[in-house]
Amino acid sequence: MPARPSTTHNTRHDMNTSDPKPTPAEDKWSALQIATHCGEYISARDRTIALLGMALEEIRPGYARLGMTVREDMLNSHDTCHGGMIFTLADCAFAFCCNADNREAVAAAASIDFLRPAHRGDRLTAFAEERAQSGRIGICEVGVYNQHGDLLAQFRGRSHQTANKVVPDLPEVEAEVATISAQSIQAKEKDG
Amino acid sequence: MPARPSTTHNTRHDMNTSDPKPTPAEDKWSALQIATHCGEYISARDRTIALLGMALEEIRPGYARLGMTVREDMLNSHDTCHGGMIFTLADCAFAFCCNADNREAVAAAASIDFLRPAHRGDRLTAFAEERAQSGRIGICEVGVYNQHGDLLAQFRGRSHQTANKVVPDLPEVEAEVATISAQSIQAKEKDG
Amino acid sequence: MPARPSTTHNTRHDMNTSDPKPTPAEDKWSALQIATHCGEYISARDRTIALLGMALEEIRPGYARLGMTVREDMLNSHDTCHGGMIFTLADCAFAFCCNADNREAVAAAASIDFLRPAHRGDRLTAFAEERAQSGRIGICEVGVYNQHGDLLAQFRGRSHQTANKVVPDLPEVEAEVATISAQSIQAKEKDG
Amino acid sequence: MPARPSTTHNTRHDMNTSDPKPTPAEDKWSALQIATHCGEYISARDRTIALLGMALEEIRPGYARLGMTVREDMLNSHDTCHGGMIFTLADCAFAFCCNADNREAVAAAASIDFLRPAHRGDRLTAFAEERAQSGRIGICEVGVYNQHGDLLAQFRGRSHQTANKVVPDLPEVEAEVATISAQSIQAKEKDG
Repeated sequence: MPARPSTTHNTRHDMNTSDPKPTPAEDKWSALQIATHCGEYISARDRTIALLGMALEEIRPGYARLGMTVREDMLNSHDTCHGGMIFTLADCAFAFCCNADNREAVAAAASIDFLRPAHRGDRLTAFAEERAQSGRIGICEVGVYNQHGDLLAQFRGRSHQTANKVVPDLPEVEAEVATISAQSIQAKEKDG
Repeated sequence: MPARPSTTHNTRHDMNTSDPKPTPAEDKWSALQIATHCGEYISARDRTIALLGMALEEIRPGYARLGMTVREDMLNSHDTCHGGMIFTLADCAFAFCCNADNREAVAAAASIDFLRPAHRGDRLTAFAEERAQSGRIGICEVGVYNQHGDLLAQFRGRSHQTANKVVPDLPEVEAEVATISAQSIQAKEKDG
Repeated sequence: MPARPSTTHNTRHDMNTSDPKPTPAEDKWSALQIATHCGEYISARDRTIALLGMALEEIRPGYARLGMTVREDMLNSHDTCHGGMIFTLADCAFAFCCNADNREAVAAAASIDFLRPAHRGDRLTAFAEERAQSGRIGICEVGVYNQHGDLLAQFRGRSHQTANKVVPDLPEVEAEVATISAQSIQAKEKDG
Repeated sequence: MPARPSTTHNTRHDMNTSDPKPTPAEDKWSALQIATHCGEYISARDRTIALLGMALEEIRPGYARLGMTVREDMLNSHDTCHGGMIFTLADCAFAFCCNADNREAVAAAASIDFLRPAHRGDRLTAFAEERAQSGRIGICEVGVYNQHGDLLAQFRGRSHQTANKVVPDLPEVEAEVATISAQSIQAKEKDG
């Protein structure tokens, strides 16, 4: 289990040159700041992300990018990456994507098409994009690629918003902002 | 769950020893013997099954039952079992099911509907049943239940047979046999 | 468009020997009576069912069976039955199944695997069975077979209950009854 | 929607006459010419497209756009467009898309998420785009929109190439060309 980080509000200064966190004086956050904070919050609490060594590389409203390296213990009996591990990577990217507005959403259903195998040591990246939102239902498309840019699997997730917030105490969103890349957030590696 | 039959018509009681193979005098195996051996073979080689502590509880032609206990490191940020872990359990049961005839099959696509959450310590069981076979394509339905008998997720997998065998050196199948439950096969726990 | 039938409460006496309709004195209906009436109600109002000449052959709680003959105008450019027509048959069986308790449900999502083609003149039958219910979400499995008993397609539908009733003025359900086959209900053929 | 290009480099202005084929002197076609011809060929032979009054509006390699107006006889018992009709529109767009290179492909599986209803008189447009190709398997995403630009349904199809050609006697493809919009091709209305 990953240790819960002692996230003081200033520990992210080191991650990037332009800190998206507001100063205490601000009482409104941009949608990007909200997304970044939701991403960190989930990264710190999702133990499967830690178990599988995933790293959130980018998050913004309606989008998330997540990486994972295929380890020995993710292989199936054919010596290729287990389909369940590829699904889980896509599913996590989907979760980041549909929770990036601080409205908690849970997975209702998903489908995946497997196109090519992944091998030990391959670096996989899942790109999740919100496709649609209708009431409390969201649809998100996720492509999983290897380091050569080959599409390994195509995933679609259906999410359902609950009445909860992802991070309980965030400020309101100031306004919709242009989609700007958030900084890379490294998920904690599973420890011992 | 079906009662474990006292299958006296074969040599399966030796299962905990390493070799369930027939003696040299036997040159034909029943479909159940084939299925059991394929199950053991995959259990011993699939490292994700080991990573997640799954145990194959039953395998026979067109059927597999697989168990997994929800661990702390399988939880998501909502403190419920990660959907990817539930999918992976179902996907593994599907793999056992569609490889039980020693014709290697790989997952082509899958879909899952999530109905209820699972919690830490819950004992999940996936029941996989072959629904159809048409040429090299197979369709398998998998239900994932908790220890109370609640259906948590319904999965459907589409498999594609390759030209390979699962276990290269198995004898031919003697004849189609009635579906008889095989004994529980404990997957090896992941070591160090 | 099918004519809206003038359904007096006695016109179904001719359909079968044991009329499941209650007499006016009854103020409670069995679940089977409810299902039968919902089936008739939908059959009379769904114009796509009429367009494609489908016939509801059986309906009971959690189950529906629906038939359709492949017509010339249902063929695709390969001279086989269009996949959309097979899907529509399955989707209609799903709709009957998940509305059989008089709680209106709409399709939220569906998936289908095509296994074998159908040809002009083939008689297709869709068997829909409710697989699970969790809150307002229902999961229904539908198999589509031809007259030889071959499985042509496997469908899964996800339904979402609304707050409405299917038939506004039905009595309450008396009690859950054993699943008994309802009589065949012929959908009206599309007229001119 | 993309602007219609003034494609002067080929003979496409003759489209409303019956034969868009190149003159005998030409022995190579562009990928766009191939796609256009495949589109016309399927449009003329698919009777379900005629039954439902669909019109192919654009086709090019890896892309197809198809329109349909919701008619009275496409309504379900809720007086909204039947989900099977929306699926069929998407499925047809998918078929055009994955057959546009003159390599015959058939639908292997599909999934659809329904987001909003369509009503009588609505003009629906399905946009199909090839998402991936791996061996003989293709993945195609289709969005179905109404005349207001609302996404009504998101569809994904999995196709499998056969060894056949769509149009038996077409010339070879000269070379891959840039994707240029083809002109609208009106599907023949069903007669008699």
